[in-house]
Amino acid sequence: MNSTERLPKHYHVRTELDHILAELSVGDSVPPERELAARFEVARETVRQALHELLVEGRIERRGRGTVVSKPKLTQPLSLRSYTEGAVSQGRTPGRILVGLDDVVADDDIAADLGIAPGALVIHLERVLLTDGDRVGLESTYLSKERFGDLVANFDPLTSLYAALREGGVRFFSATERIETVLASPREAALLESNTAMPMLLMHRRTIDDAGVPIERVRSLFRGDRVAFEATLRD
Amino acid sequence: MNSTERLPKHYHVRTELDHILAELSVGDSVPPERELAARFEVARETVRQALHELLVEGRIERRGRGTVVSKPKLTQPLSLRSYTEGAVSQGRTPGRILVGLDDVVADDDIAADLGIAPGALVIHLERVLLTDGDRVGLESTYLSKERFGDLVANFDPLTSLYAALREGGVRFFSATERIETVLASPREAALLESNTAMPMLLMHRRTIDDAGVPIERVRSLFRGDRVAFEATLRD
Repeated sequence: MNSTERLPKHYHVRTELDHILAELSVGDSVPPERELAARFEVARETVRQALHELLVEGRIERRGRGTVVSKPKLTQPLSLRSYTEGAVSQGRTPGRILVGLDDVVADDDIAADLGIAPGALVIHLERVLLTDGDRVGLESTYLSKERFGDLVANFDPLTSLYAALREGGVRFFSATERIETVLASPREAALLESNTAMPMLLMHRRTIDDAGVPIERVRSLFRGDRVAFEATLRD
Repeated sequence: MNSTERLPKHYHVRTELDHILAELSVGDSVPPERELAARFEVARETVRQALHELLVEGRIERRGRGTVVSKPKLTQPLSLRSYTEGAVSQGRTPGRILVGLDDVVADDDIAADLGIAPGALVIHLERVLLTDGDRVGLESTYLSKERFGDLVANFDPLTSLYAALREGGVRFFSATERIETVLASPREAALLESNTAMPMLLMHRRTIDDAGVPIERVRSLFRGDRVAFEATLRD
């Protein structure tokens, strides 16, 4: 099939699928590919491509051998608020699974970001982020051991780190964030119960306190089918 | 191969590839898959997966039958500045290709976003965005015909719309942006010289003027291998 034939067929199938999804509720079954291809009078491959797009967009998801309508994405505000506050503000229940809490030695890159000497000890906290019990992200935080060792020693890693830092007297001033799209590595895909073909949103964040001193460096990988970012910008 | 065997092998291959890329310059050839698999003593499939990740991240790109090191991504600041200003601020050369400039009839959704009556005429401007001649994004802008018809009639669609709006007396006050990752449709992939399997960054933007009146609604699709977003946030 040449592309001139494919374009209107793809558009037709997406429009028809949008109508079908608009009539369904969260958790409802989506009709199988074969049935949709017959109904739209197109090749199964055309339906498969459109369903794959909807899967990546988080509008539908696989459940067992079928496909169902997904819950809306979690919208994460781009702000100095924590993941917890963002989820709660949307009526969702945040949660965390501890993957690791270890001391590592700062390489040149981490040392520069944290404003410490290369070779100094760094706390590495890795957690899976949950929304309503579903795995949505994998968060990897680096903090200076000298500055935050005592605070983290008394920290429950299933709670908000930002809340603990604020209680410990840390005052967040600004964050620099970089957002990209990447694929998960096999390890990350396993931790996120996803696969290495699904697009992810990757956020690198570095926060600074009100004295201009770096607080943390964070690498957060979010499932692209479950998370969106939102920002309000002023001139 | 089970996942316990795959994880360390993948990590090993990514680390080795990072070392190889660090020694190469933009445009240099990356050794072929077969050679890398032999050098790392892993299956070709393991190398293929790692190279595919690097392709999605925009670190490498296909050229002819080979693979070369890519230019750095364009970093788009999340701000009220235009695409032009963002590209120029990084020493890159922005450009545009006009795809379409048409009047369409506002549906309920567009009408609500633009604060106009459903059924009113809307200008739809669609352009491919270029950085140093490479296609990086597809921008689709909707504006009220009644408010901006005269301005757009005298507008050169290969130049900055924001510059023209500002010259026309429009004062931008704020923008609300939503960022997601999606796959391109066949039409979008063709316009972006990409394919329907490569993750894209999708940005929806709505801007408001200093009187609180909506200016435009924009849907921008950026090649995930060529564009990243950056923001500085304050409390």
